[in-house]
Order: sequence, then structure tokens, then C-alpha cells
Amino acid sequence: MLVNPRPRIVVIGGGFAGLWAVRGLRHASADILLIDRSNHHTFQPLLYQVATAGLAAPSIAAPLRHMLRRQRNVTVILGDVTAIDTVARRVTADPISYPYDYLVVASGATHAYFGHDDWKRDAGGLKTLDDALAMRARILTAFERAEAAADRSEQAAWMTFVIVGGGPTGVELAGTLAEIARHTLKGEFRRIRPAAARILLVEAGPRVLPAFAETLSRSAERDLRRLGVTVHTGRAIAGVSPGGVSMDGEWIAARTVLWAAGVEASALGRRLGVDVDHSGRVRVCPDLSLEGFPEVFVAGDLARVGAGPDAVPGLAAAAKQMGAHVARSLKARLRARPTTAFHYRNYGQLATIGRRAAVAQLGPLRLAGVIGWWFWLTVHIFFLIGFRNRLVVMIDWASAYWTYRRGARIIVGSAADPAGRSACTPSG
Amino acid sequence: MLVNPRPRIVVIGGGFAGLWAVRGLRHASADILLIDRSNHHTFQPLLYQVATAGLAAPSIAAPLRHMLRRQRNVTVILGDVTAIDTVARRVTADPISYPYDYLVVASGATHAYFGHDDWKRDAGGLKTLDDALAMRARILTAFERAEAAADRSEQAAWMTFVIVGGGPTGVELAGTLAEIARHTLKGEFRRIRPAAARILLVEAGPRVLPAFAETLSRSAERDLRRLGVTVHTGRAIAGVSPGGVSMDGEWIAARTVLWAAGVEASALGRRLGVDVDHSGRVRVCPDLSLEGFPEVFVAGDLARVGAGPDAVPGLAAAAKQMGAHVARSLKARLRARPTTAFHYRNYGQLATIGRRAAVAQLGPLRLAGVIGWWFWLTVHIFFLIGFRNRLVVMIDWASAYWTYRRGARIIVGSAADPAGRSACTPSG
Repeated sequence: MLVNPRPRIVVIGGGFAGLWAVRGLRHASADILLIDRSNHHTFQPLLYQVATAGLAAPSIAAPLRHMLRRQRNVTVILGDVTAIDTVARRVTADPISYPYDYLVVASGATHAYFGHDDWKRDAGGLKTLDDALAMRARILTAFERAEAAADRSEQAAWMTFVIVGGGPTGVELAGTLAEIARHTLKGEFRRIRPAAARILLVEAGPRVLPAFAETLSRSAERDLRRLGVTVHTGRAIAGVSPGGVSMDGEWIAARTVLWAAGVEASALGRRLGVDVDHSGRVRVCPDLSLEGFPEVFVAGDLARVGAGPDAVPGLAAAAKQMGAHVARSLKARLRARPTTAFHYRNYGQLATIGRRAAVAQLGPLRLAGVIGWWFWLTVHIFFLIGFRNRLVVMIDWASAYWTYRRGARIIVGSAADPAGRSACTPSG
Repeated sequence: MLVNPRPRIVVIGGGFAGLWAVRGLRHASADILLIDRSNHHTFQPLLYQVATAGLAAPSIAAPLRHMLRRQRNVTVILGDVTAIDTVARRVTADPISYPYDYLVVASGATHAYFGHDDWKRDAGGLKTLDDALAMRARILTAFERAEAAADRSEQAAWMTFVIVGGGPTGVELAGTLAEIARHTLKGEFRRIRPAAARILLVEAGPRVLPAFAETLSRSAERDLRRLGVTVHTGRAIAGVSPGGVSMDGEWIAARTVLWAAGVEASALGRRLGVDVDHSGRVRVCPDLSLEGFPEVFVAGDLARVGAGPDAVPGLAAAAKQMGAHVARSLKARLRARPTTAFHYRNYGQLATIGRRAAVAQLGPLRLAGVIGWWFWLTVHIFFLIGFRNRLVVMIDWASAYWTYRRGARIIVGSAADPAGRSACTPSG
């Protein structure tokens, strides 16, 4: 009698969902192949800190194969999955095609421009470390261009920043940008006054942080205004161009537009040949498997679980829970036992506005101001991966707190300059 | 009688020479304009550590305008100087032209490919932080491609690294790469054995570290061989292609070629309309001014001072001394006093090979091995700019020493992948 070969599990994506699925399978008797487009796991909740020059990129990332080096049943492959054949049970990451017995698709989400993909060029979003480095370069370059500008109107356009989207990312970007303009850059320019920068936060809905309780939204909005951010709620962006945005018939000259609005699921969802919702998320069975394909699971931002107010939100905590549940479902399948339904445990949500101001909603508990901020700091240090990263982030945050300095104020990346000039090669 | 306006001094380049010139003028009654293509000063001696994933880019850089914020007579401008008119006394950084009364050109040097500029695409050099991030991505990606390779010969080509040039940068890259292959990546791959990587250091001259004493060259070569580096001296590269290099009629399949060979002065030197040497360096008067243009000074890697064994070397220390001397010359000019001749004080030179191995030549003193290494460490921490950077670099070095881990093993920058695929956007 032939010995059954070990089942092959392919996991697409090393974000929170994929990584937690792989880790949950550490004792499974299976050959796991983890495929990701990048060589590292990114701690997405702190991407805005890399974008605003507070942290260096390596501080919020960890190499996937290093994290998984001791889990001998995993092979990590750097690759870009271009096709999934759920009938032949193969995944293609050019030029190689990998067969699977079980598949976990956790390829996450990207920005959505509501049908205006042409806005992307002038209004980059924030989902990857490359996005964060490009955004950092745009923000820092804007102040440089204002200092070098030949005339007043050009200067004003470089000193105007529009942040689209009033969710946690938009609020965090706006608050930090206001602090940079008012404190970090103080006294460093000779021709402009950085504190005169206009920072506009535009939210189409009636209030910022719409997923939070109304009291917390109001608290966040107050904190933002105190920092000097102009908050526009109930107003939608109608156009984005290199020179500015249009909004309700009004034209705002702004050379820097940061996108923190819509989210769209990874395009791989649509290639599974099943039903997806309007933002491309895959409708899954209660155990997170794909209808008609019990050997395929979907987890993280790509999965649509629940609807309306009961929908599982696109948060790191939810992705981790889904990943861990997929691991449990897979272990059940491997032992020919029934799988169970996924239930999201809502531990709450957090958003920081700036120095000593954050909001946290934890079940019935609501924190704001300094207490919310300390809670936010503690949670983020705790969940960061790696001792070195925790230590360096603490040093950078302590330094930023006492001196307002930001440890990563360097422009790198040659695609970063919106004016199309290379601002990257030191000449000295 | 009209009051004389303050003289305008334009300084091109915020490297060691330009920055030391500006700092030396801190008490001068003049309006100084510092123009650089990047927003930061780079500590070039540690670029190879960023390239080999030991340090994050911000750890070896400091924003120029932050460093100079208290020096009120300086305006810092981010710009790319495209033209110098020494007759009209104007410098153009598109789209603006700046008039000057005195000019300091310190735009440094770049790589030289000995007339083979087409090699540049496949054999990037190491002069800027962008170069370092691109090189890091190429090194890390090579091991990833080897793990994912479809066949043995492809795998072998990705596991072969050729470093061209046996000066300090080449030696440092080769030694560190050997340590990464043998220690850092140990146990993290399933299909390849990183320690089997071939690391070839090719030097056209008869020995590595040609600028050092022969005993130190021999010591460095011994240390490199001990680490597993194959050292080829007296052999020149005849061709570079995406698949490998040719050398004395031999073809070596290698997907990763790192350039640490020639140096060529910045192209701005040739635009001054004066005599330059074969590598584009500007011949200057003893006080570092330009012949026929006493109001123009040249400093750093762009200046040719002395000849043969007395030539001032292209080292950070020499650039700083030249920058400081230009400041003294300028202050003399401003007071209508005579300038003095520049004399280079040779404090020595250093190169590290790897863990606990470095060579140092300090006048009659020669250090090698562990003592050289401790000396190297201390000097580099001491000369780094900024308390935060010193602290974080010490943490990263201590961590690397005890665990062999490297703190910046992340691939960023979409132009980085030699296979032309995007290896940068995390999918999770």
C-alpha cells in the first residue's frame, strides 16, 4: 500500500491573515508554501508613521522567511500570483505553477478610487512600504518646493495638503502632518513659514472616524482643529489633477493630495470565479471556505463575512482571527473532521490624532485624549513584531515626543518626486 | 554712501566638502545658499551597511536643513544644478537661476565604468542612499530567486555574486555578503543552502586595498578567503550582461554584479570651462580656487589636488579638510586678506572585512584583525551625525554581532528587481 503523500497547502499573502494561517498550521503534517509579492510582513497600522518620516521602513517590517525559519513545514517564495486554477488546483506565480491540495487566499486589499483610477497618479494611497516611502517623499518634497518656489501662488500650492478620507488613516495623516508643519520644521526654512501650511481633511460622510462612536468622532475632530487641520465633512472630491482638487464646484490649488479613502479587495478575488461584492470581496461560507470549493479558503481583507453593521471590519485584528480560523478549519479537514463557523471577536478599534491625542473604543469603554494616546502607544509597541523593532520604535517615539524631531526625514525613491525631477541623488 | 550688500555665497553639494564649507562660514557676514539634489547629508562610509541590510537608510543620513537650522546665514534649497555661468556669475537649478559673488562647487563623484556605461544597468554602484537601497534589493532578491528557481543552472546563477573592485567598498561588500550567506540566512531556505553562494571579488590590480600597505592587503585577503570569498587579483572584467560577466576569456554566470571600481568626478566639473584630468576632476590653485576665477572654489572628490603619490585621496576626511579650508579662504577674501595653500593632513585610512576583522593604517601605525575592527567601530560611531543615529546604529550592530541578524532585510523600491518583476508590494 502506498503511503499518502503529505498534503500541499498553498497560502497566498504574508499579511496578518496569511501569516496567522501559516503559524496556526505549525504542527500540521503538511507541506505549506507561502507566496508573497514582498519579502516581508508589514505592520500596516504604522504605515502612516513611515509616510510621515517618524519611523524608518525596516522598523515596521519583518522578513517573512526569518519569522518562519523554525517552522520546518513552510517554504517561503517571493512571487506575484497571476492566476489561480481552482479546477486543476494550481496557482501560478510566473514563471512557475504550483499544485495544491488546499489553498488559502489572503492577498488583502488595495486603494479604491471609485472609478477614477486616473486620480491614482496624483493622489497616492498607503498600503505598502513602497507607498509609504513615496508618500514621505511627496510630503517632504512639497515643503522643499515651497522654499524654492519662484512665486507666491506656486508657494501656496506647495503649502496646501489635501487628505481624502476621514477614517483612521486620514485622521492620523492629517494630525501628524499638522504637527510636522507647526513643530518639526519650525525655524528650518528661510523663505516660508511651515506653520502656515494648509492641511485639509475631506470626508464625504457626515463625520470623521465614521466607524467609531459619535462622541469619539467629535473628540477627534476637535483635536484635529486644535492642531490647525481644516476638517471638511459631507464634501466629496470631484476631481484630482497635478495642480489640485475640485470639491463641490470649488477649486483648491494643492500640489500634494494624499489618498486615504476607499478600499478595494485584491484582484485575485475576481479570478476565483465566484461571487464578489461591489468592492471585490469574496463571499465565503461560514467556515471561510469557498462555496463549491471546500479546499479553498479566503481570509483577511479579501473575505466578506457578514453584512451591514455585522460585517467583519477590515482591521488587523479581524485578519489575524480569520487566518487563525482558517488554520483550524484546515486542521479539521486534514483529520476529516467537520469545520466550524468563524465568529469575529470585536476587541475594539483605535485611532491616533497626534501628540497626546487618540481615541479608543473597546466594547462599552471609550477612551480619548491623553489616556487614549497612552493606550494606543502601548498596544502598538506590543503588537509590533521583533524585539529590535520595538526598541528602535520606542527610541524614535521618545525622541519625537521630547524634541518634535522625526527620525526618518530623508527623501529616497526616484519615482517619488511629483514634479518629475530627480530629488534623490545626493550631489555631495 | 551706499551700504555694501552682504556677499552671496552659493555652495553646490551638501556632502562632506560642501557641508564643512558651510559650517566653517557660520560666523561670516554673508548670505549662503546651499543647493543639493537630495534633502539629506549622507554618511557615505556606511553606505555598504545599508546595501547589505545591516542598517536602515535614515540611520546614516541627516536632513541638511535640520543640521543647519541654527545657522541663520544659510538657506538650503533642494535642486539639481544644471548650469554654471562663471562669467555672469550665476548657477541654474531648474527653473531658477541664482546669482553669486562667491561659488563653492562640491558636487562630488559618481561611478566610472571605464567607457562601458552600458554596464551600469546590470552592475549598479554605491554612491547614494538610492544606490544602496537598490543594491540591497538586488542582493536579497537574488537569494529569493534562487529559492524559487525552476532549474539548477538558474539557481547557480542567482547564487553567484561578482563584486568588481578591490578597494575598501568592494572588500566591505564581499566580506559582509559572505557573512550574510553563511550566517544570517542559515536555516531560512528550504531549497537552497545559502552558504553555498559563490562570492567573487575581482580586482584588476595586483592586490586588494591597493592604497594600503602590502601587509594589510595580505591580511585583508586572508580574512576574505577565510570567510569564503574567492579573490581574483590581476584580472579585469571584459563584459557585463544581465546573465553574468566575462573575465580573461572566461564566462561566469552571475545574476548579481556589484560595482565598486572606478570613480568619476561629477559632470559639473567639465561645465566650469577649465582643465580637468582623465576622471573629470578639476585642477585647482593651491588655495582651492579656480585658475582665473578667484571667486570660485572647488572642494571634495571633484577637486584634484597634488599628483601621483602626493595626490589627496577621495576620502571623507580629505573632503572635510578641503571644505573647511575653502571656508577659511572665503573668509580671507571677504576681509580682502590673502588666502593660504591647502595642505592635506593624512590621518590614515580604514577598511572593514567582516565580523572582528578590519585593517587600519594610521601614519606609521598598522592595525588588523580584532583590534582594527574595534578601532573601525569606534571611529564610525563617533563620526556619525546625530545622537539618535549613533544610538540606533549601536543597537543594530550589537544585535548583528550577537545574533548575526541584520535589521533592515526588507526589499523596497520598485526599480530594484533585476528580473523586471515587481517584488515590492506586499499582498497581505
